[in-house]
Amino acid sequence: MKNTDKTMEKIVALAKGRGFVYPGSEIYGGLANSWDYGPLGVELKNNIKRAWWKKFVQENPYNVGLDAAILMNPEVWVASGHVTTFNDPLIDCKACKMRHRADKLVESWCEEQKRADVNVEAMTSDDLVAFIRDNGVTCPGCGKSDFTDIRKFNLMFKTHQGVTEDSSTEVYLRPETAQGIFVNFNSIQRTTRKKVPFGVCQVGKSFRNEITPGNFIFRIREFEQMELEFFCKPGTDLEWFQYWRTFCHDWLLNLNIRDENLRLRDHEPEELAFYSKATTDFEFMFPFGWGELWGVADRTDYDLKQHQDHSGKDLTYFDQEQNEHYIPYVIEPSLGADRVTLAFLVEAYDEEVVDAEKNDTRVVLRLHPALSPFKACVLPLSKKLSAKAQELYASLAREYMIDFDDAGSIGKRYRRQDEIGTPLCITYDFESENDGAVTIRDRDTMEQVRIPMEQVSAYIREKIAF
Amino acid sequence: MKNTDKTMEKIVALAKGRGFVYPGSEIYGGLANSWDYGPLGVELKNNIKRAWWKKFVQENPYNVGLDAAILMNPEVWVASGHVTTFNDPLIDCKACKMRHRADKLVESWCEEQKRADVNVEAMTSDDLVAFIRDNGVTCPGCGKSDFTDIRKFNLMFKTHQGVTEDSSTEVYLRPETAQGIFVNFNSIQRTTRKKVPFGVCQVGKSFRNEITPGNFIFRIREFEQMELEFFCKPGTDLEWFQYWRTFCHDWLLNLNIRDENLRLRDHEPEELAFYSKATTDFEFMFPFGWGELWGVADRTDYDLKQHQDHSGKDLTYFDQEQNEHYIPYVIEPSLGADRVTLAFLVEAYDEEVVDAEKNDTRVVLRLHPALSPFKACVLPLSKKLSAKAQELYASLAREYMIDFDDAGSIGKRYRRQDEIGTPLCITYDFESENDGAVTIRDRDTMEQVRIPMEQVSAYIREKIAF
Repeated sequence: MKNTDKTMEKIVALAKGRGFVYPGSEIYGGLANSWDYGPLGVELKNNIKRAWWKKFVQENPYNVGLDAAILMNPEVWVASGHVTTFNDPLIDCKACKMRHRADKLVESWCEEQKRADVNVEAMTSDDLVAFIRDNGVTCPGCGKSDFTDIRKFNLMFKTHQGVTEDSSTEVYLRPETAQGIFVNFNSIQRTTRKKVPFGVCQVGKSFRNEITPGNFIFRIREFEQMELEFFCKPGTDLEWFQYWRTFCHDWLLNLNIRDENLRLRDHEPEELAFYSKATTDFEFMFPFGWGELWGVADRTDYDLKQHQDHSGKDLTYFDQEQNEHYIPYVIEPSLGADRVTLAFLVEAYDEEVVDAEKNDTRVVLRLHPALSPFKACVLPLSKKLSAKAQELYASLAREYMIDFDDAGSIGKRYRRQDEIGTPLCITYDFESENDGAVTIRDRDTMEQVRIPMEQVSAYIREKIAF
Repeated sequence: MKNTDKTMEKIVALAKGRGFVYPGSEIYGGLANSWDYGPLGVELKNNIKRAWWKKFVQENPYNVGLDAAILMNPEVWVASGHVTTFNDPLIDCKACKMRHRADKLVESWCEEQKRADVNVEAMTSDDLVAFIRDNGVTCPGCGKSDFTDIRKFNLMFKTHQGVTEDSSTEVYLRPETAQGIFVNFNSIQRTTRKKVPFGVCQVGKSFRNEITPGNFIFRIREFEQMELEFFCKPGTDLEWFQYWRTFCHDWLLNLNIRDENLRLRDHEPEELAFYSKATTDFEFMFPFGWGELWGVADRTDYDLKQHQDHSGKDLTYFDQEQNEHYIPYVIEPSLGADRVTLAFLVEAYDEEVVDAEKNDTRVVLRLHPALSPFKACVLPLSKKLSAKAQELYASLAREYMIDFDDAGSIGKRYRRQDEIGTPLCITYDFESENDGAVTIRDRDTMEQVRIPMEQVSAYIREKIAF
């Protein structure tokens, strides 16, 4: 099934109905575009985070992990530039008072008008205002073209720490995890005794007060990031940029994302941030169109230099082999955990015609088994066998997330597991007690094999290897 | 080594020096009592969270997981009572202007005066003011006894969501994860088709604007919780309370916390919250004294009832067997992830005299192997063997977090691993290439065994089982 044939309605309905994702604070009417991960969603997302950590930290000889606090000294955000430049360009329609992000307004207009020549990401606020005026871009709300000037709205959430609410205690919720890595660069290098090149990986929540969140968990205000900051010798940076660009690409492909649904968009020179030598956006084909998933950027020595200048602390690295001090260059692959969770859900979603004559179609989530919430479900063929089947469940649950289901016909139970992506269904039948064997049904092929119970654990292990 | 013989200075020095915990935003002078988990700390804490999830979710047939958003509809906190009652009683010394938490002031004074008869936790603000006045409690800053009235300071961090800063968009950073479970009770029950009794587990960040954070990661403003809300039939609640009280106790003991360092303090009737039928505080012997680690409480139907009343949504459960609707009772074991990380560090810390004559002492972290940041370290006996040893490292790293160290004498390398709690050191020597075997040294006994390389993975697996 092609991604373009899938609809967000179906994905969201499955996610809500089976306990992947619920609307946040739903009994109170929700909170604008906030979402809670349910029993299956938390397993899926944790498995994604683990698959990332496994390849980026555990198996990678260069990288180590970090878990920095969300609340940081506000000077961090002055040095990083977020206080002055992390803004959205807001513009109001004078006629109907609708509020827009000026860049998004221009973007949609260009799409409608098939103006593929316009690079909105490279435009300044002044460019945007001029473009809207010169082209008579209209308000999607009322169709008029009469806008206010652009106001810059900082996207950082502010709060106050300490007893008084004066500005001395004003702090921000971090808008990205990356800075936690930069400010700890010295400590990490010193305590791990790592030599350049080395990287630091972090998974954690970030917060951005987006004007227009939307598309389910694609763009949310409270989101989770998986970021790597990879420190290397200046001059070797473009090589490492290619290394991580390929590494990230392979990670997605190895987890069952099809290449036809990926677009690796290299930034044009005029689109690059002034400090960046190279940037690639990984875009994924969502039901609503291409959406950014992963950004891989060569950020040169910009971040460490900013922090060195602003903090007055020496952030150079001493290269023993070269006998010289330098500020390392940084390659940053930055991935949104919620977005990639949505991407895996979309990619995995399938409707398969099992029997055309009987009009029998099954919904099946073809998740990579390493990502599936449950690795297997134990199903007693009859309720009479539940006690024995539960023993098998309990022994497997010591190693894996396992479901147990003894309600309804076996066919219905298979379909329930297909829908949530469980790779294996293990049926305990009337023979099992005698021959010590069970039947294992494969989610994708629907084929069945009979194997001895003591081999089930190894069978699962092999199936979920990543 | 007894916990009372350990000092916070030593624990903190080890944590900072080896990359378990760094001061937050350190290059900018820090941010009052915020801490970042370094490369070893993030592994340790993740292992603790996994060990909790394994026993409370994966292996437990009653429980499922959840990951709700930090930002919730503000009505949640009205219903839960946090908006009106989640306050600290602040009091200022009129003479020296020092600010105190009135309850802590009375508590310290009672300790000094050996007044074991006073139950501060059961005192209201009026009680505190009267007690301070009647007993002439003095200011630790200046020794005078001249205080202002008590002001109530709400501990929730506030922020604004959306474009304008008016109060309609005022939201709070959650001060506990529990409410995310309660507001999702209906959705979880419906989508998992779980029957009472069942529980919902959650791990996540919470925020409390504490007046007096301190003791390293024991009391911090941004902290992580591991909470279970277990829903059961009214009348069965005290049984389940005992079940979870024992379950939590066993979890700690099985992870090498010694019972002599635990105190299970059952609340006196007058100390119980008005809605609670039973509460036990698990306290741990930290170097600074007994500190609360885990609270296990029978909260009756208080929380669900509050949300039902406030939201107008029916939060009753339909018991098919009994053919009746009721609001389940709740047992809540609530554990602080940062506190228990500190507890594991403290408990594990040991100084062992290896050779008294040579004045040779080793520092060893006797962490349960399931919690150790690295499961093993691969050590080539000589740098000449590094390439071959690295192959072994790479194959083991596919399954476990493994360290590799080829710098310095083998004795020094052993000690470095002892200090960070690595249970096994695997030495690749000049014989290894011929006999295909390696020597494994045990962290605790320092004994060595020689085993074939292909058995090393299984050896580690057995060692870290939990």
